[in-house]
Amino acid sequence: MGSNSFGNIFRFTTWGESHGPAIGVVIDGCPAGLALSEEDLWVDLARRAPGINSLTSPRKEPDQPQILSGVFEGKTTGAPISIMIQNRDVKSAPYDAVRQHLRPGHANFTYLSKYGIFDHRGGGRASGRETACRVMAGAVAKKFISQEGITVHAYIRQIGSVIAEELSDFQSPVYCPDPVASQKMVAELERVKAEGDSLGGVVEFIVEGVPVGLGDPVYDKLEARLAYALLSLPATKGFEIGEGFASAAKQGSDYNDLFEKEDDRVVTTTNRAGGVLGGISTGMPIVGRVVFKPTSSIAKAQKTLTTEGERGVLELPSSLRVDPCVALRGVVVIEAMVALVMADALLMNRCVKLRS
Amino acid sequence: MGSNSFGNIFRFTTWGESHGPAIGVVIDGCPAGLALSEEDLWVDLARRAPGINSLTSPRKEPDQPQILSGVFEGKTTGAPISIMIQNRDVKSAPYDAVRQHLRPGHANFTYLSKYGIFDHRGGGRASGRETACRVMAGAVAKKFISQEGITVHAYIRQIGSVIAEELSDFQSPVYCPDPVASQKMVAELERVKAEGDSLGGVVEFIVEGVPVGLGDPVYDKLEARLAYALLSLPATKGFEIGEGFASAAKQGSDYNDLFEKEDDRVVTTTNRAGGVLGGISTGMPIVGRVVFKPTSSIAKAQKTLTTEGERGVLELPSSLRVDPCVALRGVVVIEAMVALVMADALLMNRCVKLRS
Amino acid sequence: MGSNSFGNIFRFTTWGESHGPAIGVVIDGCPAGLALSEEDLWVDLARRAPGINSLTSPRKEPDQPQILSGVFEGKTTGAPISIMIQNRDVKSAPYDAVRQHLRPGHANFTYLSKYGIFDHRGGGRASGRETACRVMAGAVAKKFISQEGITVHAYIRQIGSVIAEELSDFQSPVYCPDPVASQKMVAELERVKAEGDSLGGVVEFIVEGVPVGLGDPVYDKLEARLAYALLSLPATKGFEIGEGFASAAKQGSDYNDLFEKEDDRVVTTTNRAGGVLGGISTGMPIVGRVVFKPTSSIAKAQKTLTTEGERGVLELPSSLRVDPCVALRGVVVIEAMVALVMADALLMNRCVKLRS
Amino acid sequence: MGSNSFGNIFRFTTWGESHGPAIGVVIDGCPAGLALSEEDLWVDLARRAPGINSLTSPRKEPDQPQILSGVFEGKTTGAPISIMIQNRDVKSAPYDAVRQHLRPGHANFTYLSKYGIFDHRGGGRASGRETACRVMAGAVAKKFISQEGITVHAYIRQIGSVIAEELSDFQSPVYCPDPVASQKMVAELERVKAEGDSLGGVVEFIVEGVPVGLGDPVYDKLEARLAYALLSLPATKGFEIGEGFASAAKQGSDYNDLFEKEDDRVVTTTNRAGGVLGGISTGMPIVGRVVFKPTSSIAKAQKTLTTEGERGVLELPSSLRVDPCVALRGVVVIEAMVALVMADALLMNRCVKLRS
Repeated sequence: MGSNSFGNIFRFTTWGESHGPAIGVVIDGCPAGLALSEEDLWVDLARRAPGINSLTSPRKEPDQPQILSGVFEGKTTGAPISIMIQNRDVKSAPYDAVRQHLRPGHANFTYLSKYGIFDHRGGGRASGRETACRVMAGAVAKKFISQEGITVHAYIRQIGSVIAEELSDFQSPVYCPDPVASQKMVAELERVKAEGDSLGGVVEFIVEGVPVGLGDPVYDKLEARLAYALLSLPATKGFEIGEGFASAAKQGSDYNDLFEKEDDRVVTTTNRAGGVLGGISTGMPIVGRVVFKPTSSIAKAQKTLTTEGERGVLELPSSLRVDPCVALRGVVVIEAMVALVMADALLMNRCVKLRS
Repeated sequence: MGSNSFGNIFRFTTWGESHGPAIGVVIDGCPAGLALSEEDLWVDLARRAPGINSLTSPRKEPDQPQILSGVFEGKTTGAPISIMIQNRDVKSAPYDAVRQHLRPGHANFTYLSKYGIFDHRGGGRASGRETACRVMAGAVAKKFISQEGITVHAYIRQIGSVIAEELSDFQSPVYCPDPVASQKMVAELERVKAEGDSLGGVVEFIVEGVPVGLGDPVYDKLEARLAYALLSLPATKGFEIGEGFASAAKQGSDYNDLFEKEDDRVVTTTNRAGGVLGGISTGMPIVGRVVFKPTSSIAKAQKTLTTEGERGVLELPSSLRVDPCVALRGVVVIEAMVALVMADALLMNRCVKLRS
Repeated sequence: MGSNSFGNIFRFTTWGESHGPAIGVVIDGCPAGLALSEEDLWVDLARRAPGINSLTSPRKEPDQPQILSGVFEGKTTGAPISIMIQNRDVKSAPYDAVRQHLRPGHANFTYLSKYGIFDHRGGGRASGRETACRVMAGAVAKKFISQEGITVHAYIRQIGSVIAEELSDFQSPVYCPDPVASQKMVAELERVKAEGDSLGGVVEFIVEGVPVGLGDPVYDKLEARLAYALLSLPATKGFEIGEGFASAAKQGSDYNDLFEKEDDRVVTTTNRAGGVLGGISTGMPIVGRVVFKPTSSIAKAQKTLTTEGERGVLELPSSLRVDPCVALRGVVVIEAMVALVMADALLMNRCVKLRS
Repeated sequence: MGSNSFGNIFRFTTWGESHGPAIGVVIDGCPAGLALSEEDLWVDLARRAPGINSLTSPRKEPDQPQILSGVFEGKTTGAPISIMIQNRDVKSAPYDAVRQHLRPGHANFTYLSKYGIFDHRGGGRASGRETACRVMAGAVAKKFISQEGITVHAYIRQIGSVIAEELSDFQSPVYCPDPVASQKMVAELERVKAEGDSLGGVVEFIVEGVPVGLGDPVYDKLEARLAYALLSLPATKGFEIGEGFASAAKQGSDYNDLFEKEDDRVVTTTNRAGGVLGGISTGMPIVGRVVFKPTSSIAKAQKTLTTEGERGVLELPSSLRVDPCVALRGVVVIEAMVALVMADALLMNRCVKLRS
């Protein structure tokens, strides 16, 4: 239980509001003996950071993580790992203007209804800022699973109506490995940004080096766990694994992946299932996709109600920080969540046979 | 924990193999005082039962549920509700032929790899038969949430490439409320059945009468919980809520649902979000979709490996029971899982304010 | 969650009322590959069975356990193990007499207050009969931990004011290994039985063959887990480990166990701590004690209230089955719960280091 | 899961080592709308603080708690409440002397064996310093339950062989409400302190204003939960409720609490059960006791092994901070843990009936 925690064995809890004094994460269940330092968190935090280019929101924060516990002489001890980031570049005043309005597509209405109180400054707990904590936990999980040979990689597959077709090693400003699509995406993003509008997108992830046997049958299937993890991200509206929704139109004889031998290892000649069968990893790469809705905070004026129930118009102050497409910053967060699911599944899998 | 259990407060555990002596479910956390009898389970069990027409597998089982505990003088007592179904029409011999083969698209390879042992008869624990237990738990959940005015309804949205467009009150043999599409679906199903092949499909669900405030922020979001529940069903490969994957191509100004007043109640003029914001219900209907891959067990011969790693060909005996499209029987199972998520969320929501 | 379940990885759920059609347990998380049959459950069920001699209640039930799932060709598969016992020797009529009274020392008042409904027949869910399910789960756990060299043994340490001093191999009708004390206990039990009264008692348990390192720091300490398990038994009112309450009067220099080497193994020269330090096993035997209050159901008339709040007198019908001392049948149940805690701790301990 | 967390609905997680940069707690599940400020934490932190008189260890820390999240405009929001204390008065050098020795009665051996690594400075995670986090969480829980009319109070019942008999309002330097016993306890503590030794003790707690119905049947009984909570405290070795171990020598007719009416409320004329029946509160005060072993860290030299397995003698540097009796500082920690159990039980109890 605890709706701010995730994971069974490798379990973490996040805390903090966008404009509070700090945000942080406590990881409980990371195995002892893992080399870990604050520098291990820098790369992914930087990939998530806003303001890296004109296409993400201009908040500028160094985001210096401090490891406060659980590491001794450079190694994890098995004790909880507490990591904190002080909030610095906090400008709450612009949010006063929106405090009295229900924000279309935003959680302030539902939070207010559920709890009777809402920290509106920067979106409070409902802010995307919480995902920085996921990224830190994910960086620890990535380091752990990499010791078992598992890697996670994510990228932009679609923004608006532009879909990446040819994936390459291309380094794209919008994390899209198709150079042609990448260029179109940049154009689309600049267009909607100029309009004060936003776009949705799709992120694809791939996990490689997965052993056979991760995941648990029936309710804690690996794909169910991944769906749970990824639908917990702000603004996500769908998840699919392998061929996903396209499977509906297939026939079984064209869909089933056939088993084959490769160097004494069992493989499948195709991977339409996306690396899982019956909730358990097959040893093939795990591949899936997540859709993000268009950013709800847009500059355009929108009709709405006030918190008192009066009809009104919401116009976000120009100073309000806005990402034209949250999928961009979602890429590294998806990697983090996937890595966290894999770390947990690895540890759970140690318990299923007579001798581990 | 426990990969055969689901739910926080309203929690259930299922057990049993397809060809074992019985299957069952234990529900722990159902509130006391709910009128409940075995008859309450009959309708949904019948909707799920195989053999109801030529399009689902011909196994004929009366599926008589017995309530063994937790009900006293016709009402639940707060104690665990144990419900069992004896397995009757069990013919395991045909499965001997497949015991030595990895079945393409099936879980026998991953179970064998994970546990070193697999009850191959009828698919054992990995069989769709387990979903009868979900349906029984779901019938109890439906009865509970109906007392709070909440109803769940699901139907076929797509089979193969046929997509339902106009939803009506039409009673379809394939649970599709579009008469034209329904007819085409039947034709498609008969075609692939004749070919010894199978098709995928999409099921849509809608929850009505939902109060504002169900679901929990951050990791236990209502949509994450639904995705977890529905990706735990055999053969599901994707989940979406509201406009789902179509959101990617939208702009925020065309996507955000605007708030409006209706009889002193806050509503939204559209429902593209599918009834949730920030993981919490808005009070609008909750709408989502799940995709099922084509049934993996097909009559056509398939190249594969034996469990010893030798190349071979798997030909399923004609007597093996096969659904040409598992989405059909998935309709009532999806209703069950959605109802179970709602029941749990209703109970969880009693704990968030100073006074409930 | 789920107050009818126990355990993290090796987790079980019990269901059933004393006078319902059946009782049962579902074990989820038992490792695959363990040889298991119904006969493995017989010995402990017989040790718990009532009516074995004149000192326990005269209910005569064969208590035939049926394993309904989770075992294939004689071995566990990793799937949930469902075990059921049909209730046979059920005479509910005598309980009608007590339905309208609050029973002193009994749970019918608190259950009624909490749930608004109570299955009074045989005590319903609050009956000691539920412990037969613990014994079955415990027999599975014992078999699992015995493969790792761990054994659990319990015996009567005290009944009424008679305390066992010299423990030997003596086979006592009251499970007390001190022949002199055993004889006095029998006399005491016969005396109170003749009076229509009852006695309390203390059970001691010892776990041998425990490796160093089981148990988890801070909140899931091994001793905390044992206390939780054993205080969940009906009629228990206290738990202690090692020297327990006698520790209060000790000085640290007389209490600390000193470390020594024995065949390259670290041991302690004494074991006042009872085999745990900081929540984690030291490798020394784990020793503890549990106190049972005198059986609440006595033949003597007692003043009380009716369920309507009227003053009255409760006189239990002579046909009501009564144990003069529940500690006797508690011996095997304590072994079961301790074995279940150890099985869980063994599995949990596989997850704490980089490589298991 | 997560051995550094406690609670189901009102759930908290602690982190931090004795000599790390900080310690802290994250509370998830505290209802929204509770007035809360840092000052609410001061009184209990001061009661736990070391150095308040010569009888507790001389570490002097202001222990300034900072609330970093979950409170907005003076009230809880339902979001996680993160509270941190910076560690200040940290002198780790004296601990270097003990790093190479197994400390008798201490957890450094078991932690090292389990994890292969141990932060020895100040006892690291195994230090009593962790309990400051429990006290902070407990202060929040106390404030919540006090709104429902529930209060928790604890005091010293025994130190060494001195047992308090007559409880009064006496304000004792050793938290013992019996003036005569209190004086003897002080003398005993000064004696062992002078000897470089330590003493055990017993703390009694009482919960008043408890409604009928808190706690859950079978495995999550209120007394089991309390035992679990209190045996998770460092140095505790036993728990009892009501008459506890003294129950063994009683007869049922002298033990059962009889029901009576008092102002239309059901009460019992005695309270030997300590306020619970069948795991559920009766509405009478909940009374129990916990035993603490003598502090393991003593000034006297002790034979032991080095971490390399060589025989040696451990002499703690005189600068090492030592409490002659940890039960003293345990008083407020026990109050905290009991309050946390009650808060959780209150919230859980909202979910058991059809309408809350």
